Amino acid sequence: MLTKAPHLFDDATRVSAGDSRWQGQTSQDYWAFVGPFGGVTAATMLRALIEHPQRSGDPLALTVNFCALIAEGDFDLDVRLVKANRSTQHWSVELTQGGSDVTTLATAVFAERRPSWSHQQAPFPPARPFEQIQPYTKIAAPWIRQYDFRFVEGDPDFSGAKDAPASAYSRLWIGDRVPRRIDMLSLMSMSDAFFGRVFHARRELVPFGTVSLTTYFHTDAEELAAEDVSRVLAVADAKIFHKSYGDQNGELWSPNGRLLATTTQIGYFKA
Amino acid sequence: MLTKAPHLFDDATRVSAGDSRWQGQTSQDYWAFVGPFGGVTAATMLRALIEHPQRSGDPLALTVNFCALIAEGDFDLDVRLVKANRSTQHWSVELTQGGSDVTTLATAVFAERRPSWSHQQAPFPPARPFEQIQPYTKIAAPWIRQYDFRFVEGDPDFSGAKDAPASAYSRLWIGDRVPRRIDMLSLMSMSDAFFGRVFHARRELVPFGTVSLTTYFHTDAEELAAEDVSRVLAVADAKIFHKSYGDQNGELWSPNGRLLATTTQIGYFKA
Repeated sequence: MLTKAPHLFDDATRVSAGDSRWQGQTSQDYWAFVGPFGGVTAATMLRALIEHPQRSGDPLALTVNFCALIAEGDFDLDVRLVKANRSTQHWSVELTQGGSDVTTLATAVFAERRPSWSHQQAPFPPARPFEQIQPYTKIAAPWIRQYDFRFVEGDPDFSGAKDAPASAYSRLWIGDRVPRRIDMLSLMSMSDAFFGRVFHARRELVPFGTVSLTTYFHTDAEELAAEDVSRVLAVADAKIFHKSYGDQNGELWSPNGRLLATTTQIGYFKA
Repeated sequence: MLTKAPHLFDDATRVSAGDSRWQGQTSQDYWAFVGPFGGVTAATMLRALIEHPQRSGDPLALTVNFCALIAEGDFDLDVRLVKANRSTQHWSVELTQGGSDVTTLATAVFAERRPSWSHQQAPFPPARPFEQIQPYTKIAAPWIRQYDFRFVEGDPDFSGAKDAPASAYSRLWIGDRVPRRIDMLSLMSMSDAFFGRVFHARRELVPFGTVSLTTYFHTDAEELAAEDVSRVLAVADAKIFHKSYGDQNGELWSPNGRLLATTTQIGYFKA
């Protein structure tokens, strides 16, 4: 079931190697309302690093700043190894189109993770089985159709703003619509696949865009492959919406109970 | 009480303007175990942006990647306005010493924050009054002496590792030892002023260093000045320690009940 290739997600995040300049292109399959889905942009930048010949270790942290809209078509990725140590690497990636201004700026840390004392303090969130929940189909943007969202709690209610804000908390299964084994690229993309928390709190769609996104990986690639899963149990919440910006924090869990990634972002909204 | 100047913190974070290259120097007052306290390094990088003649708006997000140890002495800050939009700016800052490799890499977003619908979903954490709690004095590192930490819950217990890990959660008041009105620079620095969560979970000091730190500001400078406070109520927690790296997430609250900043970091540990 998971061996079919190439997967749309791999098409969407494909990059061609350069020395310090790599190439990629936007994907209609993962188009959002006014530009490419940010999660796929982030995953594409991460892919250029993972496939880079100088890369060593696995992704530990990736921050992506969305500076300007990306137009449909080709883009360049200027990849730079800022500093390499014995067991960590620090990278930066700048996405440009046609030699114009930077539209997306990312920094990443890679690490060779050594065995250590291990302790997972966060509790594995309870959830009904994936198979017992209907897929979410109410929003028809292309990128949303590429994912299989199954809400355990906090499914969007777009009945309109009320006096009291609704909870911004959601718990849901996220898998690729065409199942694909979860790898570092999926975790990166899925960490931006939550609906804007402001939609939940306001009970309506409002203009919204992620400004800065940070994801930490709590597994290395080998452990992640050993999980051998095609979906994650995800939770997302927000703490504050104020003066046109709001936060989001989330967790991505293996169905086996392992916390794979944590993520946070700040986004613009108009309401 | 708050007018005494110059404050040690302002000395420690002082920068001299350049065009794209600014200068600063490490501070013995805020020295940590093997290098400068990361919070002051982050605040110094933020100060160069806030004081930059091209800066507009207020800090919204700052990510700092600690790539290598900073030696005692002078450093250069290469400041670059990566992209400016109508109401946001994207910056990068690289810290180097003597023309060598980058030791610290930061990206920042500034924004002119417009009035909007506002909703603070996170609850203001309960706390005994600052005045009723003894200051924490058990660790004598220089930077720790510059802060007045008063633990409401989760004060460090260094009695040694037990079979069951302890909670990584802490709730505490943080102020400057010599009171100073909380500004954006204080929030940046204080967001790195929690003790390593691994110390709490393990009940012992182990080798530890922040690798990547991200802070979001949920106030603009004018609102923050209007709070007119000299301390924050802070909470910090962790979700996982695994293969030599662990996370931390935190909140910085005004004593008046406003969430001022949220922060997250991933750090290396040896245990």
